[in-house]
Amino acid sequence: MHQPHLRVGIAGLGTVGGGVLRVLHDNAELVAARAGRPVVVSAVSARDRTRDRGVKLDAVRWHDDPASLAADDAVDVVVELIGGSDDPAQELVFAALRAGKPVVTANKALLARHGVALAAAAEQSGASLSFEASVAGGIPIIKTLREGLAANRIRRIAGILNGTCNFILTSMRERGREFADVLAEAQKLGYAEADPSFDIDGVDAAHKLAILAALAFGRPVRFDDVHIEGIRGVSALDIAFARELGYRIKLLGIARRTEAGIESRVHPCMVPETASLARVDGVYNAVVAEGDFVGRVMLEGRGAGAGPTASAVVADLIDLARGRTVPVWGAASASLSDLPSVPMSDYAGAYYLRLMVLDRPGVIADVAGALRDSGVSLESMLQHGRAPGEAVPIVLVTHETRESQMRLALDRIERLDSVLERPSVIRIEHG
Amino acid sequence: MHQPHLRVGIAGLGTVGGGVLRVLHDNAELVAARAGRPVVVSAVSARDRTRDRGVKLDAVRWHDDPASLAADDAVDVVVELIGGSDDPAQELVFAALRAGKPVVTANKALLARHGVALAAAAEQSGASLSFEASVAGGIPIIKTLREGLAANRIRRIAGILNGTCNFILTSMRERGREFADVLAEAQKLGYAEADPSFDIDGVDAAHKLAILAALAFGRPVRFDDVHIEGIRGVSALDIAFARELGYRIKLLGIARRTEAGIESRVHPCMVPETASLARVDGVYNAVVAEGDFVGRVMLEGRGAGAGPTASAVVADLIDLARGRTVPVWGAASASLSDLPSVPMSDYAGAYYLRLMVLDRPGVIADVAGALRDSGVSLESMLQHGRAPGEAVPIVLVTHETRESQMRLALDRIERLDSVLERPSVIRIEHG
Repeated sequence: MHQPHLRVGIAGLGTVGGGVLRVLHDNAELVAARAGRPVVVSAVSARDRTRDRGVKLDAVRWHDDPASLAADDAVDVVVELIGGSDDPAQELVFAALRAGKPVVTANKALLARHGVALAAAAEQSGASLSFEASVAGGIPIIKTLREGLAANRIRRIAGILNGTCNFILTSMRERGREFADVLAEAQKLGYAEADPSFDIDGVDAAHKLAILAALAFGRPVRFDDVHIEGIRGVSALDIAFARELGYRIKLLGIARRTEAGIESRVHPCMVPETASLARVDGVYNAVVAEGDFVGRVMLEGRGAGAGPTASAVVADLIDLARGRTVPVWGAASASLSDLPSVPMSDYAGAYYLRLMVLDRPGVIADVAGALRDSGVSLESMLQHGRAPGEAVPIVLVTHETRESQMRLALDRIERLDSVLERPSVIRIEHG
Repeated sequence: MHQPHLRVGIAGLGTVGGGVLRVLHDNAELVAARAGRPVVVSAVSARDRTRDRGVKLDAVRWHDDPASLAADDAVDVVVELIGGSDDPAQELVFAALRAGKPVVTANKALLARHGVALAAAAEQSGASLSFEASVAGGIPIIKTLREGLAANRIRRIAGILNGTCNFILTSMRERGREFADVLAEAQKLGYAEADPSFDIDGVDAAHKLAILAALAFGRPVRFDDVHIEGIRGVSALDIAFARELGYRIKLLGIARRTEAGIESRVHPCMVPETASLARVDGVYNAVVAEGDFVGRVMLEGRGAGAGPTASAVVADLIDLARGRTVPVWGAASASLSDLPSVPMSDYAGAYYLRLMVLDRPGVIADVAGALRDSGVSLESMLQHGRAPGEAVPIVLVTHETRESQMRLALDRIERLDSVLERPSVIRIEHG
């Protein structure tokens, strides 16, 4: 039986696009065996035609306008690797789906912000939308949630979703250095962008969490409901205290099913150093999913880079070549749930609190009083050495506390004369 | 559009079968949404009709002969949960495939021993054969190798594939106890069978490794080529020395692509305690896969039990309901490779060797001489305390050594007068 080639049109030939070209070239035979037919690049759209990408593109059609890939009859599937939630990526993906042409993308921002409309467009035309590469690079977490764990009601997902942040936090811990130093170094090494805010302020992790939460809980993606805090506020002092208390600081994306609905949040966490997630270091990503039948499953691997991301893109292409498709959010839009989002003020958990205070009699009593008056109960307190009349750190760990009460307590604490800086607040998470 | 129900016939209603009934009952709505149609049990075959399985089976057809499920027109897919590589499981699965009826099974022994013939039967009739539940319980490792990492040339897989062994080794380490004590306790807790040999001698792990290796390297399954050693020989003393040397002892299944072909082996390993696999404790399973583009990916979760295994079976049913299928070994049989198996004698790696010797002058020289004469070079030696004229342990760690040379050295060492017991030999693996 003759199976026609799957003809791929790629928009964007940067790092990931170059990786896809290499996988399809180097592993062509293996990919064809697993796909049941050859997967070939028939058209591309990229800014620079002349750059050497290590793979011959002479026989390939070039499009100046990415969106015209959607209308190219020599393209069976569009691979969108432009990035960003706006045009031209948005225009291209919608155009392809509306034309009934399947799309494979690595674009988390697009999925997080326009996921509902994209699913509607895909359902209307019957085209599929694949996005394994959008979250956690080569780790097949989208497939795991949409297919592998599909029999389960998921209770919670938690993940290290941004390699830049994990690299910075790991380097700070291993070498006892401050955030700004390590960030500068990460930029030099190419692990952080010139403008790093997208990564270090938690936005990238939040895009990914919004996607994972939609799949895990079977409801439309809701990026605007994710509570986001980044890692700029994490200091070397906090990392030292974390070590003393038996924790490691990680930026986690967490989504949880509670009685009130779905809670979703990205923020630095104190994770017990014995937890699997605490051990995931450097540029590695990991995601834990907890299901009612399967229990706890963790996936770990490289979260970014040409190779891992291209591996995910080509896996999607192989699925397509075999005719294996999944509804965008795991089930038809009409079958998705309307579970509400839980506001962050309703979150409850234990907190780590570090204050810089003037070392003088009565300070601890003042702080303890502010916590008591806000209904926050203390589990432990840590203070090292004495420096009468000078600034010293004190660390408090609370019992389970509601976020709204903690905010009240922080308001009171910040107004105390003896408290010299904005307190450092890190939530404690079991991992 | 009306989608007909997917009608499931289940053979075997033990622990896992009961779990499948519960998932399909408790999560019926969620499963239907993800499957695109309801998944219902229409027929069963089990020894005891009267046992309470927590789910009503009044409306279900009962078959005394499991094989007759294959011919039941009210069954769209056969779920085989009888177990074992012989009849009746074998008969049922072949009958269903030959009748063109898809099969979902948790039966690793059947797949490992008859995988080539099963793939041929499936290809001839066009029926699919799914077996996510056969390896590592709820961890979607089959899907990950067959689909998620399908773009990669896999270099190596390594896994903790048997929960009983991992539970025993973990308990020995945590509580400093001997193998026989812990095994007896595991049997009492239900973590080990009355006849535990299948687990502790490494056969179960070898079945699973054979399946994973076939998928990872795209070649026909070859159970007979797996080198198998179990954990009976691991002593409390070895575990104590492992700790001192910075290792943990794990039973691993490892398959590796070398220049000569595919090496596959199950045996106790010394794994550096900093490696992810070293941290996977108790009844948890984990599998590491190393691919040319994706790098290192690890999956971890519960490897057995009703819930996790049922989660995997129902995931396969959801895939079937959606029409998502994969060739048995990831590619058509004709596209599989004919990479040869590498014999264990060609294996090369570092070894841990523990000897019980008579503490008298010249013993170390004798042992070192035997190693030298076999071409084995030493990295380090450990001996604690002195007990002149009595038995003392000495531990040797070698540089990379060929298995054939190590066997030669062991022959020589065992023949020394001052060596009192058969040496304990554990290979060192990076994790």
